[in-house]
Amino acid sequence: MPDRNLSGDFPVAEFETRLKNAHAAMHAEGIDALFFNSEAEIRYFTGFRTLFWQSPTRPWFLVIPRDQKPIAIIPEIGRALMRDTWIDDIRSWSSPHAFDDGISLLTSALKPYQTIGMLMGRESALRMPLRDFIILKDKLSGAEFIDASPTVQRLRMVKSSEEIELIDEICAIASTSFENAANLFHVGMPLDDAFRAFRMDLLARGADDVPYLVGGAGQNGYSDVISPPSATPLREGDILMLDTGATLRGYYCDFDRNYAFGQASDDAKRAYRNLIKATQAALKIARPGSRCKDLHAAMQKVINQEANDVGRFGHGLGMQLTEAPSLIQFDETLLEENMVITLEPSLSLGDNKIMIHEENILIQDGPPRHLSRLAPEELPILST
Amino acid sequence: MPDRNLSGDFPVAEFETRLKNAHAAMHAEGIDALFFNSEAEIRYFTGFRTLFWQSPTRPWFLVIPRDQKPIAIIPEIGRALMRDTWIDDIRSWSSPHAFDDGISLLTSALKPYQTIGMLMGRESALRMPLRDFIILKDKLSGAEFIDASPTVQRLRMVKSSEEIELIDEICAIASTSFENAANLFHVGMPLDDAFRAFRMDLLARGADDVPYLVGGAGQNGYSDVISPPSATPLREGDILMLDTGATLRGYYCDFDRNYAFGQASDDAKRAYRNLIKATQAALKIARPGSRCKDLHAAMQKVINQEANDVGRFGHGLGMQLTEAPSLIQFDETLLEENMVITLEPSLSLGDNKIMIHEENILIQDGPPRHLSRLAPEELPILST
Repeated sequence: MPDRNLSGDFPVAEFETRLKNAHAAMHAEGIDALFFNSEAEIRYFTGFRTLFWQSPTRPWFLVIPRDQKPIAIIPEIGRALMRDTWIDDIRSWSSPHAFDDGISLLTSALKPYQTIGMLMGRESALRMPLRDFIILKDKLSGAEFIDASPTVQRLRMVKSSEEIELIDEICAIASTSFENAANLFHVGMPLDDAFRAFRMDLLARGADDVPYLVGGAGQNGYSDVISPPSATPLREGDILMLDTGATLRGYYCDFDRNYAFGQASDDAKRAYRNLIKATQAALKIARPGSRCKDLHAAMQKVINQEANDVGRFGHGLGMQLTEAPSLIQFDETLLEENMVITLEPSLSLGDNKIMIHEENILIQDGPPRHLSRLAPEELPILST
Repeated sequence: MPDRNLSGDFPVAEFETRLKNAHAAMHAEGIDALFFNSEAEIRYFTGFRTLFWQSPTRPWFLVIPRDQKPIAIIPEIGRALMRDTWIDDIRSWSSPHAFDDGISLLTSALKPYQTIGMLMGRESALRMPLRDFIILKDKLSGAEFIDASPTVQRLRMVKSSEEIELIDEICAIASTSFENAANLFHVGMPLDDAFRAFRMDLLARGADDVPYLVGGAGQNGYSDVISPPSATPLREGDILMLDTGATLRGYYCDFDRNYAFGQASDDAKRAYRNLIKATQAALKIARPGSRCKDLHAAMQKVINQEANDVGRFGHGLGMQLTEAPSLIQFDETLLEENMVITLEPSLSLGDNKIMIHEENILIQDGPPRHLSRLAPEELPILST
């Protein structure tokens, strides 16, 4: 159709490969059908991409039977858009519905299957009313619902060349915006205006959207790393941190940058250098065959502090701002070629202040590819 | 704290009122504690606002015991930000965790209570791993979990004057951006660039964020209303529709506008006029005491068509792009003073095309207040 280009996010072959890999995993694990209700997984297997998920009103379902193409069970409002994907079997109902918001259709689609895999584990949510899920389980009392989270995460962790290209492109856009900091931010500017200017710069350089932008600013450090901005003006001696997840066709970058205004304390400069060294230590061993916990340990050794509130030193990246795996003590995941991860060491500066640094990389045979252009090795000081 | 201003979204009195109303509802319905795991409800009762919810990794919990202040049970990464709200009792753990992502802490907090209200119904989701919820239920086998969705939706439907002010302000910003269409959009412009230009205009005029922007363009109509943009250039004779949910301090506007380029068919002009008339019919009866289904019926009568794929003609608006109630046949909700709703009639144009129009209003004693500045009564035609 001329007026949109959804299937155009990826060639059909991309979805065929995703499905083939899912089918293989289902065979290996004795799963008869996969059942999804979440944005990322439905998009992953169909190509269905819309911001309409912002509306919590309607549930959306996907069923992938073993050896068959996915079945979309969706509200009528999504029918036209789903028709534009590679999916053939689209079953829809008028939603919101007085008493049956897709549950009868979903029950019929799942009826033939005994072992149904769904997301129940780490990092997952049930994106449908719990009451309706209980009704579904009652109607399918002969079936067993098992946790397919690790299986699906394993599939999504390793990116295709098409996915890598999108992440690479959005990382390049964000790198350029960050490198433009001296033109965007200045002393006296309210922090929320700095955020606004940064969002606009990302969009002007080609980002589709900026779903994530957090940060902080304060004298020689900031107190947390997930805040929205206040209207407090930037001051000489502030350190400003911006952490952004901008998107291109639904794929994210996720990295941050730190800037000092006019001057910085030796402590702040030293902390920044330590974060860079921690990143370098991780870069050195970020190879297929290393484990996530090894990268965490390498960064922890440089930081040489008790754990802080952030709790991990990086994570997977792709269709979501954060994805499995985690760079943390207990994550045994083996890095593989074509995984995209963030390296995100952080440290306490005392006085309830913290500093955090983040880069995005692609695991490949040999040294990793830098997707974000690496930050300077010394804390950048913007003139005031 | 000088470097952010979260509690500053609202005075503490706002949260005290919200809590008082929740406590009254809990007494009336025999609920001993409310349990939440969702962004909107946790923000509603605490003021905790962060885009960090974009990361699916960590669960967040809030418990509101009858007659007590809320207890936040959250990952350590959110502790600093939560300390900046009016909440005193903050219990946190290092998340992600190898095997206990907050469930022990949550179990202890809920242990004293018999009847636990949570969101299970229409428009809700379980924003935590299902597996962990099952563990929680097992650990609290003496407790009964009941659906508090209607109760909580009723509380959130009626807005405070502070909430109304924010929605009013973001609606005014979006109205101005839409009125600037002739400067933003032109024939030959790729649709995705038009989206980008509109996002930037909203930000430049003071929007914090544009989490929702969908639309379509095509000759004499568009084929769906939830699409992201293609790169297809706008053409003479196209009708462009943009529907935006921009935000200010976490509160949304949600309305759309239609524009024709150079010319439009009589069918398209007539369809547009019908949508305006439908909106006017709803405006006439949008008063305290009318039911949502009455507004739907008034619009349906003007449209005089079979139902189309959209399925409803408006909805509540506030902290989320769409909230209860729904303007639909089966929604018996009585409108009350200080509800904010959208009027969103839509119609089929044939040939798989559709047209949709939306306004945002405040229900008050007497005629509703227009939050979005009403669209012109005739389809605006932009010169090419």
